[in-house]
Amino acid sequence: MDGLGGLPAKELGGKTELEAAQKPNFDQLAQTSALGLHEPISLGITPGSGPAHFGIFGYDPIKWNMGRGVLETLGIGFDLKRGDIAVRTNFCSLDAKGLITDRRAGRIPTKECVRLSEILDKKVKLKGIKTFVRAVRDYRGALVLRAKGLGPNVDDTDPQVVGANPLPAVGKDAASKRTAKLLNEFVMQAHRVLKDEHPANGLLLRGISTYRPYPTFREIYKLRAACIAVYPMYRGVSRLVGMDLIGQPETMDEELDLLGKFWGDYDFFFFHYKYTDSRGEDGNVAGKVAEIEKVDKVLPKILKLNPDVLIITGDHSTPTQLKSHSWHPVPLLMRAPSFRTGHGGKFGETDCAKGTIGPIKSTDIMPLAMAHSGKLLKFGA
Amino acid sequence: MDGLGGLPAKELGGKTELEAAQKPNFDQLAQTSALGLHEPISLGITPGSGPAHFGIFGYDPIKWNMGRGVLETLGIGFDLKRGDIAVRTNFCSLDAKGLITDRRAGRIPTKECVRLSEILDKKVKLKGIKTFVRAVRDYRGALVLRAKGLGPNVDDTDPQVVGANPLPAVGKDAASKRTAKLLNEFVMQAHRVLKDEHPANGLLLRGISTYRPYPTFREIYKLRAACIAVYPMYRGVSRLVGMDLIGQPETMDEELDLLGKFWGDYDFFFFHYKYTDSRGEDGNVAGKVAEIEKVDKVLPKILKLNPDVLIITGDHSTPTQLKSHSWHPVPLLMRAPSFRTGHGGKFGETDCAKGTIGPIKSTDIMPLAMAHSGKLLKFGA
Repeated sequence: MDGLGGLPAKELGGKTELEAAQKPNFDQLAQTSALGLHEPISLGITPGSGPAHFGIFGYDPIKWNMGRGVLETLGIGFDLKRGDIAVRTNFCSLDAKGLITDRRAGRIPTKECVRLSEILDKKVKLKGIKTFVRAVRDYRGALVLRAKGLGPNVDDTDPQVVGANPLPAVGKDAASKRTAKLLNEFVMQAHRVLKDEHPANGLLLRGISTYRPYPTFREIYKLRAACIAVYPMYRGVSRLVGMDLIGQPETMDEELDLLGKFWGDYDFFFFHYKYTDSRGEDGNVAGKVAEIEKVDKVLPKILKLNPDVLIITGDHSTPTQLKSHSWHPVPLLMRAPSFRTGHGGKFGETDCAKGTIGPIKSTDIMPLAMAHSGKLLKFGA
Repeated sequence: MDGLGGLPAKELGGKTELEAAQKPNFDQLAQTSALGLHEPISLGITPGSGPAHFGIFGYDPIKWNMGRGVLETLGIGFDLKRGDIAVRTNFCSLDAKGLITDRRAGRIPTKECVRLSEILDKKVKLKGIKTFVRAVRDYRGALVLRAKGLGPNVDDTDPQVVGANPLPAVGKDAASKRTAKLLNEFVMQAHRVLKDEHPANGLLLRGISTYRPYPTFREIYKLRAACIAVYPMYRGVSRLVGMDLIGQPETMDEELDLLGKFWGDYDFFFFHYKYTDSRGEDGNVAGKVAEIEKVDKVLPKILKLNPDVLIITGDHSTPTQLKSHSWHPVPLLMRAPSFRTGHGGKFGETDCAKGTIGPIKSTDIMPLAMAHSGKLLKFGA
């Protein structure tokens, strides 16, 4: 439940969305589960979606940080090779002077994004290197440069405001200066190709990063792991840690169907629900409550599968009051027969702060789950 | 509130001084704040004042440990240079055989300390190096050796008992042996100069240390920071981390006046109150309660300034039962709109142990305060 944690809301009489939601299934589950809070990175540090997910998957989120270019490109199923430079691209609208009038090109539909991406993929060529342009979703795409000796230390060209020119790509070291030069040439050609398109006649570059393989769930945990997620970002993180992407669900019902269908084929499922975070980002208190209640309604379907270990948490908190990710610890519920329970309480921030799991680091969740599934040996004699 | 934390006292029906004090302002504040405990160094380790303060300022107290010689010398406003050897000196009383009869020379007044320090500063000379003698407060002074290649690994010459000779300075490595030789020469000359003074005819050396600049609050946090403290020790720690020392207050009222007067000029204030620790060191239960109640009475003046983030804590615990600093975690109250509150409770050790901040390391306080003041960016995409 992405962005699950919140803050006390005046509209809810001082309760958080999770505390105020009518969620009988969660609260009943809490009675036989262990509660706690997890710290995504370290105190006071707000994580992006990438590091937050690496943490709950057990990867040190500082050591294993990875840019959004690689994550989204992997998330759409593209086969990156070691050393590829991957870039998240946004189609945008530019006026006659080249100033940005809309950073999201009127949120063009995915179909239009696919059409334009195919044009760029064909028409824009850089001497001596391979380039790939792919659509991601809505106004978002991916650009891959394949060549040797390219560095990833290049800032975004998105100035984050309208009324400004896209920034030039600037490399911070010799290898990254080569990348920046290629990216600037790419954008110049792309703007020429797109010049008669409307509203998507410009390209902004973000999350410029280089692909390196990660140790996989199978290598670390000896688990066959699967990801069930709608959005490319989370699919990309999962793929990077060696999970299979099963299906391409668009709704929670489709996600649930996939879970049931593939239940016997995997040892671990990552089941991602996006909209608790979205309503947090919107600052929509009632909306976040409603999303939590939606998940509560389908919870019995998941419990019916009777997982050996069940983990319910978020990657980070997204308080509606802040309309953004935050540094607050994240509610965590874990169920397995070998957990210490007995504190009772409901699934909410306040009761989780008093839970038997205690406050832990996000990277401790997986070792704990492994122990409670009986998969870890004794250390020492 | 130096030495804030305590232990259950029989005299107080099993409550700590902080729990038993009549402190309506603190307890009302606790209702809209977050509570917790901080661990100054690590479990079981009792900190000196220096490391305890470095911890709450966010500096790893083991990596950034610094001797009292440097801290007090900085605290009186002396301009140390990199490599200077700084020493805390105590005037003491010696008998005809050179044995110590009073380690504090009858606690001579500061005025007398100034007179004797000026004499030593003029009359004692070491060949080829610069020396500086300064009064600190009461029987305490500072000695600085300025030369190249001096090491700080020299033990105190204070034997900590009366009836013994001052110890010779002994260096633990080649560079520190040079320092020890110079210090022994200095003390020999000083005793000759002081021989007709009474009761301050001797000199004990403590906290021998070498000055190195620290990264500052401005460099680390981008904060303009100010210290409001009476005692040189705390002023020295603050100066070392780049805080401005504003005024030279002698009372809490003067400290409060300074806070109000300079409120608009700084982003961060360190406001130090000494006497909660002093009554702890005295073993004075009623006295410690009274000091806490004094702070409670002036709390509204601080709240009226409406800080974005308010942190109330101690550097370490000083239980009256132990009459000394201790290793116990320290009560912590933090207030900002983005804290999770809602556990209720009063500002005291027991309720702090159940607080939403949880048990944290002292070095986590500043990152948390920075996050709640909206000054930190997101990590990763």
